[in-house]
Amino acid sequence: MTESNTNRVNTKVLADFKVGVDNVIFSVDTKQNRLLVLLSKRKEEPFQGYWGLPGTLVRQGESLEQAAYRILAEKIRVKNLYLEQLYTFAGPNRDPRESPHSFGVRYLSVSYFALVRFEEAELIPEPSNNITWYMIEKVPQLAFDHHQILQYGYQRLRNKLEYSPIAFEVLPELFTLSDLYQFYETILGNNFSDYSNFRNRLLKLGFLLDMGIKVTRGAGRPASLYRFDPVAFAPLKDKPMVFI
Amino acid sequence: MTESNTNRVNTKVLADFKVGVDNVIFSVDTKQNRLLVLLSKRKEEPFQGYWGLPGTLVRQGESLEQAAYRILAEKIRVKNLYLEQLYTFAGPNRDPRESPHSFGVRYLSVSYFALVRFEEAELIPEPSNNITWYMIEKVPQLAFDHHQILQYGYQRLRNKLEYSPIAFEVLPELFTLSDLYQFYETILGNNFSDYSNFRNRLLKLGFLLDMGIKVTRGAGRPASLYRFDPVAFAPLKDKPMVFI
Repeated sequence: MTESNTNRVNTKVLADFKVGVDNVIFSVDTKQNRLLVLLSKRKEEPFQGYWGLPGTLVRQGESLEQAAYRILAEKIRVKNLYLEQLYTFAGPNRDPRESPHSFGVRYLSVSYFALVRFEEAELIPEPSNNITWYMIEKVPQLAFDHHQILQYGYQRLRNKLEYSPIAFEVLPELFTLSDLYQFYETILGNNFSDYSNFRNRLLKLGFLLDMGIKVTRGAGRPASLYRFDPVAFAPLKDKPMVFI
Repeated sequence: MTESNTNRVNTKVLADFKVGVDNVIFSVDTKQNRLLVLLSKRKEEPFQGYWGLPGTLVRQGESLEQAAYRILAEKIRVKNLYLEQLYTFAGPNRDPRESPHSFGVRYLSVSYFALVRFEEAELIPEPSNNITWYMIEKVPQLAFDHHQILQYGYQRLRNKLEYSPIAFEVLPELFTLSDLYQFYETILGNNFSDYSNFRNRLLKLGFLLDMGIKVTRGAGRPASLYRFDPVAFAPLKDKPMVFI
């Protein structure tokens, strides 16, 4: 094994792989307008003591999704966690364990993505306190190529916000249009869109229901509370549309 | 190895994998309005003699993309082939070689996707004549879970047509709006959209250039020739938009 691995190019020998799953779990703290990502501190080599995406290696008889949910169940309790496959990273030399001086086996990573409701997500405490939410701007140097995986996940999150009603899965049930705009801004950045264009476009799509209730936020004028109407959205589900 | 593999559930033993790449290559024959997919006949077990997506197993030192391009270079010559990663399939028992009575190793498949220009794609002849374009409606029973991979690729193609200018990469340089509508209809199905809505929406996006030339197709009235204008499209590139 070691011998054939040192002969890396022009060989027709098949590569042997272990397969890992790595989860990019985002959340938005709507009170403080912060976009967060779930990181876990590695207890073992390689990259012991580094932060990384919560992941694990796939066991015999286990599907990729089973492995991804298994590791998350050890780290976080949250309702309605739907993982979506993100991307597969598998270039040679992405893991130091691939070295012929180590195990000499390739490590492929299939990444998964989810956005969860911050208020409902409960981190599972461990003595080593090795799981936490990081603000996206303050993510430290990560293990392996996890920074690249995180960037890929962040781009997917932005795309989903632009093309799908994912925001309504994690916003509070009732929200003002300004809350919704603020949520989008927390993820997409300041001035991602003119507020009144955003407001008009969303209302025109026809699935935001005015609840006939006004609230006052801070010093602002009273604003109407809306909710997402899944019944009005159903016929639009498979139609291409943009939200911003 | 065989022993531990028979103990499939509740084991903490890591699974060993071989990794394959499978390519979903689409093309549109615009003369006959047919959507085509590239299939290859398998020369070896398992599924010997069955049609399947052109794929191969990843070798030592090789990236996934390298493996995907390597196998396609043996099957087809085409300008501007850009593969895009599609999805990773890796459930246990997706490949008969996973059986403990066979190699006892899992087989993961990373699929790739491309749409190529039919006129420029040249299949590489082999004595066994084992590569061909199949009309999407006439695809036979495929090896492994390739039908599922193909369905996933077909959905990606439809999405890309709805949200990105992929059509202009493979249409002839000059086309009428009716040619463009016909291209969309070949992929998305009859009446995917009202023709005049489609026409208006596309013209409003502002990147179709009227060449000031009229042509007559069959018995129809003379129609203007357009071309896609990459300069007008550039500022829109990262803006979410829908084409239908």
